Amino acid sequence: MSAYSLELRAWAYLARVAEPPGGPLRMLVEEIGVVDAARAVRRRAMPPGYDDVLGLTQARHESDCEISDLDAAARVGARLVTPDDDEWPGWSLMSLAQADTAARGGPPLVLWARGPGQMNAVANCSVALVGSRAASNYGEYVVASLAAGVVAEGCAVVSGGAYGIDGAAHRSVLASGGLTAAVLACGIDRDYPAGHSQLLTQIANSGVTISEYPPGTTAAKHRFLTRNRLVAALSSVVVVVEAGRRSGAANTAAWARKLGRPLGAVPGPVTSAMSVGCHRMVADGLAALVTTASEVMSLVRPDGQGGSNESPKRVTDTLSSAQRRVHDAIPGRGSATVEEIAYAAAIEVSAVRSALATLDVAGLVVPSEGGWRLV
Amino acid sequence: MSAYSLELRAWAYLARVAEPPGGPLRMLVEEIGVVDAARAVRRRAMPPGYDDVLGLTQARHESDCEISDLDAAARVGARLVTPDDDEWPGWSLMSLAQADTAARGGPPLVLWARGPGQMNAVANCSVALVGSRAASNYGEYVVASLAAGVVAEGCAVVSGGAYGIDGAAHRSVLASGGLTAAVLACGIDRDYPAGHSQLLTQIANSGVTISEYPPGTTAAKHRFLTRNRLVAALSSVVVVVEAGRRSGAANTAAWARKLGRPLGAVPGPVTSAMSVGCHRMVADGLAALVTTASEVMSLVRPDGQGGSNESPKRVTDTLSSAQRRVHDAIPGRGSATVEEIAYAAAIEVSAVRSALATLDVAGLVVPSEGGWRLV
Repeated sequence: MSAYSLELRAWAYLARVAEPPGGPLRMLVEEIGVVDAARAVRRRAMPPGYDDVLGLTQARHESDCEISDLDAAARVGARLVTPDDDEWPGWSLMSLAQADTAARGGPPLVLWARGPGQMNAVANCSVALVGSRAASNYGEYVVASLAAGVVAEGCAVVSGGAYGIDGAAHRSVLASGGLTAAVLACGIDRDYPAGHSQLLTQIANSGVTISEYPPGTTAAKHRFLTRNRLVAALSSVVVVVEAGRRSGAANTAAWARKLGRPLGAVPGPVTSAMSVGCHRMVADGLAALVTTASEVMSLVRPDGQGGSNESPKRVTDTLSSAQRRVHDAIPGRGSATVEEIAYAAAIEVSAVRSALATLDVAGLVVPSEGGWRLV
Repeated sequence: MSAYSLELRAWAYLARVAEPPGGPLRMLVEEIGVVDAARAVRRRAMPPGYDDVLGLTQARHESDCEISDLDAAARVGARLVTPDDDEWPGWSLMSLAQADTAARGGPPLVLWARGPGQMNAVANCSVALVGSRAASNYGEYVVASLAAGVVAEGCAVVSGGAYGIDGAAHRSVLASGGLTAAVLACGIDRDYPAGHSQLLTQIANSGVTISEYPPGTTAAKHRFLTRNRLVAALSSVVVVVEAGRRSGAANTAAWARKLGRPLGAVPGPVTSAMSVGCHRMVADGLAALVTTASEVMSLVRPDGQGGSNESPKRVTDTLSSAQRRVHDAIPGRGSATVEEIAYAAAIEVSAVRSALATLDVAGLVVPSEGGWRLV
């Protein structure tokens, strides 16, 4: 008799049986439950319409690692977090289901997490600070300063645990006593890069390291690209601090845009190759230019005090962040149900109802066709 | 008997009789000619509708300095350039008549010029490189590099002759053998700032120094602001290289926008107070972020090779700069005469006719109501 529940073992089995383990497998779990889904995959007996799962799981369906994976995670103090857990950052990951993310697997099926930091707390208010591994002293100084400022505003800092900008961001948060999350491109029990072994342990001691890959998985180029979508999804805002002409940070930036996350880029000397990517994003209108933590926070909370925007000009400028997101989530034409609005705004239904009430009083929305429409 | 013509003396008289000597005085000259205008002012006998000129010229109408002004200019090798001269950069200055520039006098009545550089040649293709007097080493390095790049592209560099960014821009052009113009806020025979006495002489030796103020006029704060409109008007593009939070360069930048000149700003370290103004302009969407001379030139010639824009997406992307300006000058609704288009596009009538012929063949415009309208 295993120490793990049937459900947890089923999740762990499915987490390894395909890579990336999202898409059709996730739908199968939603339809028939995780235990039956694991059984169906193992026995190659799919319900109608799920034949594509057979192909996805062909290579690994005989895998029998669920207990050893759970044990490996437990040995490093990590846990398997599933959509059934309170900690599951469902609202944040929902954007991955909306975006055209088929090629990268959509939302993760599960996440492995190590550390006291709760993923839903991270995703609730967080800034991704990402950039070059070959960061300049300038870049490391600036990202440390931004990270400390974000922490001071009560937000978490998400990054990729890599050398350069990522590492400087995490270190600054640790020094500031804030919450930081490192999203890994390898198994939760692996230290990659090896030189960041101590840093990753420190992050796991006070924050959280996160991976969608089963324990033991080695870092690989395609996993970095897949990982980047999680960095963007788990963050309220993505800020590129330094990026060369061909930087991995550009990929995270592209995910931010795909997922509707505000994107900022930090300028630097035009003489620095490490700022070329940031300048390009701003010049091309893809990223907002940000220079201080306060400007970053004004992307997180557009209705806040930060940044340079002053004196409300429109009624919607006076709305709270949630109210504005609800307002923006209602289509320009026709109406939307509360559930549709909640989905589009990535805000819980109860909060959507509360925001709609305020918007109604403000004369900005009216009930219509069983839902709501803009006035 | 004076060595100067009656007309030149009349211009010189009117150039001193009001400050700034534009607006109603210019209209009076256009209506009755310069000699009669000077006589009317001196005798306080205005044609109907020009009573406001009496007020503007009250304080100085007894001035008798026209010959001494022309002599003072001649002593430093300067000349009085009027709208009657081929060198008059009329098309560039026309934007000042369109913009809401009453408070600063609209187009200048005349310009005093010193040096072999012809003002119309400067205005034909020129980049204003402006910025802080308290420039950083970084800023001086970058502006020198941009100035050299602009010269290599065959364009002139306009600036204000001040310490810091202005001076570094002029010096770089002189070192590159290019054409540079310094627009002064004092008389053409004055060296301001005194520490730039030698630099201004060098500019006048190969380029041109320009002022709308009579010889002997001292620099004053309001004259810097008035001068800034000429820097913008005489330039195809304005680029702010460094600007602190409250920089005079922001005023030139505002003129650029008012006059429809593309505005660029150079980023720098977020840790530098001298880049705060540039970052603010970019973040607020007022200026394009530019990092190289090639990007600056792509603002000058949006249809050129410079910059990051590739692969034409619309028919209008294949147009020459002049053709596009003509196209853009035609209103979205209704039609415009060739003269109206020439005015709005600031392109000579003959060139407008040539561009319209091409646009007609391309199916973008059609003759309509004695003018042209967009298809």
